[in-house]
Amino acid sequence: MADWHPFAGRTSVEQVEEGKLLAPKFDTNGFIPVVTTDAETGEVLMMGVMNEDALLETIRTGDAHYWSRSRKCLWHKGATSGFIQKVVEMRIDDDQDAIWLRVAVEGSASCHVGYRSCFYRSVPLDSDKAPIELSFTETVKVFDPVEVYGDAPNPTQL
Amino acid sequence: MADWHPFAGRTSVEQVEEGKLLAPKFDTNGFIPVVTTDAETGEVLMMGVMNEDALLETIRTGDAHYWSRSRKCLWHKGATSGFIQKVVEMRIDDDQDAIWLRVAVEGSASCHVGYRSCFYRSVPLDSDKAPIELSFTETVKVFDPVEVYGDAPNPTQL
Repeated sequence: MADWHPFAGRTSVEQVEEGKLLAPKFDTNGFIPVVTTDAETGEVLMMGVMNEDALLETIRTGDAHYWSRSRKCLWHKGATSGFIQKVVEMRIDDDQDAIWLRVAVEGSASCHVGYRSCFYRSVPLDSDKAPIELSFTETVKVFDPVEVYGDAPNPTQL
Repeated sequence: MADWHPFAGRTSVEQVEEGKLLAPKFDTNGFIPVVTTDAETGEVLMMGVMNEDALLETIRTGDAHYWSRSRKCLWHKGATSGFIQKVVEMRIDDDQDAIWLRVAVEGSASCHVGYRSCFYRSVPLDSDKAPIELSFTETVKVFDPVEVYGDAPNPTQL
């Protein structure tokens, strides 16, 4: 990858917003946020970040790669679980500081807790409770995380 | 809002992932990332961030509120343009550090450049060009940004 430099510089607002050259902006940590949706259902599966290598690997291979902030390494999504995300379409936003991946998921699961989507709970609007009570939108897990991940550390941080 | 404290503390991974209490995690800048999709089409319209006030105002009013990083203020989306986002459903992810809003947009536009979605360009996969050339997925603007925003500063930063 070291020899491939496919990103353009960012020279003007007009070029970034209206131009045809890929000129992504990484934040001060070197990350660009990514939202990943199921290409068929439109459901949001997960949000993550890429660093430059993860973006290049995703473009090069067609498999979604992220930067794992909990493990601090390049993350080929599904390498452990088998739930590889094949990219059907990649989009970039107006100021080129966010990525949208539309993917097909082998095994139909994307969440380390065992659900299809990471977004398996909804937040009621206009609640006057404190604390607010969530509702589960997925009630059945599609896989057993203990079977799939064994005793690998849980990435959730408090 | 100062008297309403509807967020639970984060006491264990199990409580955060499997529990029913809203216990959002804001990053070191006080932000939580948000992805917003069109409730009808599933299209990703934009990505942004909320601070605690923006999340509370969104829950309280049912209109999407964000934190504007370019203007450094609470941002009632559509207050200037008229393109208010009515929240149809709000979801939170497994470790409660990301929000998904499904919205209905008055006026069907969400992008300050004039397009329906901020993600109006796709990135080809398996390209060997350098720099990579984007394709426009929306070719016609749905509004004229100069008419709508006048001479307000463009939020895009290089």
